[in-house]
Amino acid sequence: MRIDPVKGTRDFYPDKMRFRNWFFETCRRVSLLFGYEEYDGPFLELLELYARKSGEELVNEQTYTLTSRGDDPETLAIRPEMTPTLARMVAARQQEIRKPIRWFSIPNCWRYEAPQRGRRREFNQYNVDILGVESLDADAEILAVTVRILRELGLEQGEFVIRISNRYYLETLFQEIGASESVFPDLLRQIDRIEKLKPEEFCANLLELGLATLQVDALLKRLNDRSYAGFEPLEQLFEKLEQYGIADYTRFDPHIARGLLYYTGTVFEIWDQSKNLRRAVAGGGRYDDLVTDLGGTRLPGVGIAFSDVVIEQMLEQRKKAPVLPREIDIYVAQYQPTLRGQAIAIAQSLREAGFRTEMNVLDVGLDKQLKAAAAGGAQYAIILAPDEMARGEVNVKNLRTREQLAVPMEGLATFLSQNNDSSLNKEV
Amino acid sequence: MRIDPVKGTRDFYPDKMRFRNWFFETCRRVSLLFGYEEYDGPFLELLELYARKSGEELVNEQTYTLTSRGDDPETLAIRPEMTPTLARMVAARQQEIRKPIRWFSIPNCWRYEAPQRGRRREFNQYNVDILGVESLDADAEILAVTVRILRELGLEQGEFVIRISNRYYLETLFQEIGASESVFPDLLRQIDRIEKLKPEEFCANLLELGLATLQVDALLKRLNDRSYAGFEPLEQLFEKLEQYGIADYTRFDPHIARGLLYYTGTVFEIWDQSKNLRRAVAGGGRYDDLVTDLGGTRLPGVGIAFSDVVIEQMLEQRKKAPVLPREIDIYVAQYQPTLRGQAIAIAQSLREAGFRTEMNVLDVGLDKQLKAAAAGGAQYAIILAPDEMARGEVNVKNLRTREQLAVPMEGLATFLSQNNDSSLNKEV
Repeated sequence: MRIDPVKGTRDFYPDKMRFRNWFFETCRRVSLLFGYEEYDGPFLELLELYARKSGEELVNEQTYTLTSRGDDPETLAIRPEMTPTLARMVAARQQEIRKPIRWFSIPNCWRYEAPQRGRRREFNQYNVDILGVESLDADAEILAVTVRILRELGLEQGEFVIRISNRYYLETLFQEIGASESVFPDLLRQIDRIEKLKPEEFCANLLELGLATLQVDALLKRLNDRSYAGFEPLEQLFEKLEQYGIADYTRFDPHIARGLLYYTGTVFEIWDQSKNLRRAVAGGGRYDDLVTDLGGTRLPGVGIAFSDVVIEQMLEQRKKAPVLPREIDIYVAQYQPTLRGQAIAIAQSLREAGFRTEMNVLDVGLDKQLKAAAAGGAQYAIILAPDEMARGEVNVKNLRTREQLAVPMEGLATFLSQNNDSSLNKEV
Repeated sequence: MRIDPVKGTRDFYPDKMRFRNWFFETCRRVSLLFGYEEYDGPFLELLELYARKSGEELVNEQTYTLTSRGDDPETLAIRPEMTPTLARMVAARQQEIRKPIRWFSIPNCWRYEAPQRGRRREFNQYNVDILGVESLDADAEILAVTVRILRELGLEQGEFVIRISNRYYLETLFQEIGASESVFPDLLRQIDRIEKLKPEEFCANLLELGLATLQVDALLKRLNDRSYAGFEPLEQLFEKLEQYGIADYTRFDPHIARGLLYYTGTVFEIWDQSKNLRRAVAGGGRYDDLVTDLGGTRLPGVGIAFSDVVIEQMLEQRKKAPVLPREIDIYVAQYQPTLRGQAIAIAQSLREAGFRTEMNVLDVGLDKQLKAAAAGGAQYAIILAPDEMARGEVNVKNLRTREQLAVPMEGLATFLSQNNDSSLNKEV
């Protein structure tokens, strides 16, 4: 009887794995290009790490927990996100690490959610963060890394947009309408859900928080006002985005508030701009107090995270997902199994010379072997046959041109290094 | 208050992460060289997947379990090993996947064990497997991949040895002494522990299993006999290891039995051969029935797995662990923060040209910035200063030779591409 995979997970068969590797290698390459260093933390953390600042929904509803084994059981959590681990690690070595800290990571994370299009319970997530910079240079740099990655993945201007807001800006609106400071977190939470709610639901929720109709109307008016004039952090940020040459990928949008508790200033979300399906692809922001909350001294931070799932769908929708076939260089075939020993020696010498070499180890005919060679993407098949072997030669078949040539076994690697499709063709 | 990491885990700060990446990139490169494809599965599996064939100790004592959330709770396990996931995935698509299946993976796994030297509760483990090959070509190829990886990691012949046995061989010994077939699994388990037990403990355990003293003595004699003459699977395997040129890295050893239930024929362990600390570094073997047990049709398999923890220690002990410093190409420094906007534009153009470029975003003096540049491993610092900027120039400082040169901003990337240490030196 078969056993199913756990709901909400993915099996990465080699074709899917090639996509995942391409995706995260692109993230890795761009991160290094901007001077970022890779880190990783454990897959399990004490639940307390998230309980402090990630917010109720994430901790109580979405986090997978278990009790540790042993004499002194503790409540462990499967990491639902990476930022608390980052802040914990930084806090533990805060003095010795050179600032600013530019780090990235590609963790596997879990959240208990209804599996749906673009959302799984298990996901691999790219995280990039900069800590130790008070100025908006940090926020702009993180967004520049993000734009560069999305461009290298094949997405262009107009296909996605980065919607930017600032929690302090939103709080000035709350102050303007005379809302009590005690409801600020609730107001942020409502704004974070504004586009998932019907307008009357949103208003009803605000009234329930104790706001008067007049206040609700005033807030709505301000939330639809797309000018941040006079709010310096946003003015500075957009100026820096101009300097980075990425302002056209971004826009101010006071509907963005983000759900996590720990965000402080700038918050942003990347949105898919396809006509059928506008949706958030990624999000991030500033968390200037998180390192302090996790036992360090003040160290401002800003970061963003995105997973492969939803961006893969964006690329597929636009027919931009790359075709990534398997790629070996050489396939070593044999007319008969008695030549296996010599095939092993030849395959090993080709690997020693750096060729990605697969060899046949089944008792099947040459036809099947050559089909396997083609399926592997090999350029050449080396065919061992008794007569040629007796003369110290092997057949080299170019699988693209179908040309075949007998080549002395000694110097085979050199021959293959010096020849490409066309020259082998010519010699024949 | 600080929050500790979970016991038995590691935080991979960037220096540790560089080692981990180097280690597993070496595994990945060699796997591709042998024509293997990468795959991955979920971090959580149904506990049942392991309960069937991994063996009691692993499942009951070492596996982390949790109950899934939602209406239909199931018992989930954090993967303690990768082979059952591999067999499950293969069984699910057995018809459509071309055979032989050559796959590798680098999963994160967990086992509840006392943390000790070379052993953590959380570990990253390289797995390489071949399925669909009845002959010992598969076993030999897996060992050839292993030897190549260990050599590329810097270990040499004599520093490690692959001890090879065969469960069917051991069973012929059990038959020879007239042991009942019902105790064969227990006998294998005792042999797996033979080197951890005192001789009298081992004998007592066998007597407890119902063997007579005569039988115990006879078995001990055979277990100390290092000849496999007449046992064809071992004869064939060692012949193939000769053909692969790796026989000198291996030896027959009937003390090797392996602990997991699912192994069938060949079993092997890699042992550290340092004088102070002989210990198993990795293990694997054949599992010809596992795919069947997990719902597929018969598909023989063989594989090996090893983690970075213990091999890192082997390299450190031998002073062979590579020094892997941080490596950026260029650092963009500024005399004063007002030049930040122009610095951004220059940094972006250098990244566009492919240089790994870090830029200063703090309000600190040039000295501190140049120290950061050196710490990042940069070859060049680009220094923006008001006078030079007014002339459309920046200073290029070669951080290795300490030479400095004013270079026009336009064409800076071209200049840096064409110059290396020595030529910049000469021009100055």
